[in-house]
Amino acid sequence: MDECASLALAGKGFTKTNPIVGAVIVRDGKIIGRGWHTEYGKAHAEVMAIADAGEVRGADLYVTLEPCSHHGKTPPCVNKIIETGIKRVFVGVVDPNPVNAGNGLDILMEHGVEVFLGYREELCAALIEDFTKRILIGLPYYSLKTATSIDGKLATRTKDSKWISSSSSRAYAHYLRSVSDAVLVGVNTVIKDDPQLTVRDVHSENDPYKIVLDPHGRMPEGSKLEENPDKLIYVTEKGAETSASSRLRAKGANVLGISCINGSLDLRELSGKLIEMKIMNILIEGGGETAGSFFDADLVDKGYFVIAPKIIGGRDAVMTVTGKGVELVSGAKEMLETDIRHFENDILISGRFADYRRHVLDLTEKLRNRCSRGL
Amino acid sequence: MDECASLALAGKGFTKTNPIVGAVIVRDGKIIGRGWHTEYGKAHAEVMAIADAGEVRGADLYVTLEPCSHHGKTPPCVNKIIETGIKRVFVGVVDPNPVNAGNGLDILMEHGVEVFLGYREELCAALIEDFTKRILIGLPYYSLKTATSIDGKLATRTKDSKWISSSSSRAYAHYLRSVSDAVLVGVNTVIKDDPQLTVRDVHSENDPYKIVLDPHGRMPEGSKLEENPDKLIYVTEKGAETSASSRLRAKGANVLGISCINGSLDLRELSGKLIEMKIMNILIEGGGETAGSFFDADLVDKGYFVIAPKIIGGRDAVMTVTGKGVELVSGAKEMLETDIRHFENDILISGRFADYRRHVLDLTEKLRNRCSRGL
Repeated sequence: MDECASLALAGKGFTKTNPIVGAVIVRDGKIIGRGWHTEYGKAHAEVMAIADAGEVRGADLYVTLEPCSHHGKTPPCVNKIIETGIKRVFVGVVDPNPVNAGNGLDILMEHGVEVFLGYREELCAALIEDFTKRILIGLPYYSLKTATSIDGKLATRTKDSKWISSSSSRAYAHYLRSVSDAVLVGVNTVIKDDPQLTVRDVHSENDPYKIVLDPHGRMPEGSKLEENPDKLIYVTEKGAETSASSRLRAKGANVLGISCINGSLDLRELSGKLIEMKIMNILIEGGGETAGSFFDADLVDKGYFVIAPKIIGGRDAVMTVTGKGVELVSGAKEMLETDIRHFENDILISGRFADYRRHVLDLTEKLRNRCSRGL
Repeated sequence: MDECASLALAGKGFTKTNPIVGAVIVRDGKIIGRGWHTEYGKAHAEVMAIADAGEVRGADLYVTLEPCSHHGKTPPCVNKIIETGIKRVFVGVVDPNPVNAGNGLDILMEHGVEVFLGYREELCAALIEDFTKRILIGLPYYSLKTATSIDGKLATRTKDSKWISSSSSRAYAHYLRSVSDAVLVGVNTVIKDDPQLTVRDVHSENDPYKIVLDPHGRMPEGSKLEENPDKLIYVTEKGAETSASSRLRAKGANVLGISCINGSLDLRELSGKLIEMKIMNILIEGGGETAGSFFDADLVDKGYFVIAPKIIGGRDAVMTVTGKGVELVSGAKEMLETDIRHFENDILISGRFADYRRHVLDLTEKLRNRCSRGL
């Protein structure tokens, strides 16, 4: 199942609005076929693995997610599994999508396929957290990445920030971009850094959208992000036609008008629009006000905090995560778990602020008794 | 030698201005005596271990630091070692004090004692870093401890700070106090928190001095720290007689007048005064301006940064480590190494900004050839 999960990740960034899925076909203890959902509208993981294996009659299928039972862009996978004579199916977790949610398992069993449910559930549930969040509450999955000194500074008092973190940390940030549908920054970051927000340093063909929040039309002409307008989503105040918004619309960028509340964009309204655009997985890259506003709106699902073991200091230095902030420590946004990794001398603390795995795990536990008993 | 190091630590906080030292006597592979330097003016570790063992003729002595060869408050330890007939001496590191610095080893060897040098050198050199710093540059050893959210906030926008860190982290902070000669805060901390700065939650008889930096005489009357004036060191601008300084002097507190530069206390001048008072080991507990001013003066030797995995946010929240700060990232104060520990959900990142072990290790390496070859 770990092999399946690795295969699934190869589709990350390409399958929207479908979840990523990985599958292998096993005969006599050997993997004879591998597949993953490569791109929205293309073959599902199970079908690809079956095609890769060739003859699968009597073989076992391992798949991270319950096979689909409904006609979407492709015919139901359960039909293919039944037709090709696969004997046993080992499933990671149940599909949280209500149109499936156990139907796939039932249909397989009704046709004499033996089904085992609940393998590496936590891992498999984690693969589809963005999908689960959208199914449950209709919002994109937001990850936040910051790189600061140990004293929480994004830049010095002179706004110097290059580079606080190590090159390995920066490569990891590019990996995070490569598995996102979009990278999001505030216009201050564009003004200060003129970033490209492209995927570099890691091999990936995914080119995520670049979302710029600019309620007041301050996006400078000639920014690097304007060179690739079809990948740019420019977010500004609804109805406020500025020279920036006209220019960007003329260039072919996606311009979104969003309501403002007290001068700040309504991030829930924006989230709805992004889901309409099939953007499910968003990496927030800062700066402090942008990060803070997403925490204020209680929208951050996962955090990746790179901490470089150095002290910048300075009452006028640039702080990470500002916005309005919480009133009391007891109201702080707690990480539900933390994971620590090292990149050269840097320390990456990552973890979830919200856990959508729970829903899928509960569903899986509930349906496990319906299936055959596995390990 | 690890046993010796543990014994040495028992003296931490009591031996100023002597270094801490631990020793054991070994015969036939068994420890028959243990000793440590318990308090300035009392017996040294070697003498205490010999007394503990009783008959030591022909036995081995293990000691973290080169035995002293000079008359101080007590007679030279080398005499005692020679007189009692100890056969072999295993030494951690050479004493960086120029009055000794190899003399002790030479005298032992001249009297037929076999000497082996360089055991667990890094550990033994770390035990005496404060002592080494004073010997080398005549300044106290400064450790800094902060407890922040992952976004580097000491308190929320409403100044709420209780409690950001876990109770285990706070107990560790009390341990750090217990091994310090003094705990240092700025007057803002006194005004806001009215702390006691005593050692609680851990067993220790050490009651460190409490140093309050208050250049402008803002220390509020009736603060808890005033209840124990003989342990209070009140630092204010030289010549500026305020009601606070008169009141505290009348109560019997130690009042230090220090020059101000642009309204800030000259921390190097203060450091010199503290060394005169035999205060070698100081724990800086904050807040942000106090911590920042010690970094600005390049005085922080070691940092203990407790990071609670939560986000406070807020552009008006209280930042850790402010002061003036560095101009460029390339000028940031780098930790030379980092160590990570966990206290409940908190993460403690600690490490050195300066390394005084090097001097002692180099000295030890240089003199090793003079001694017998050990392991």
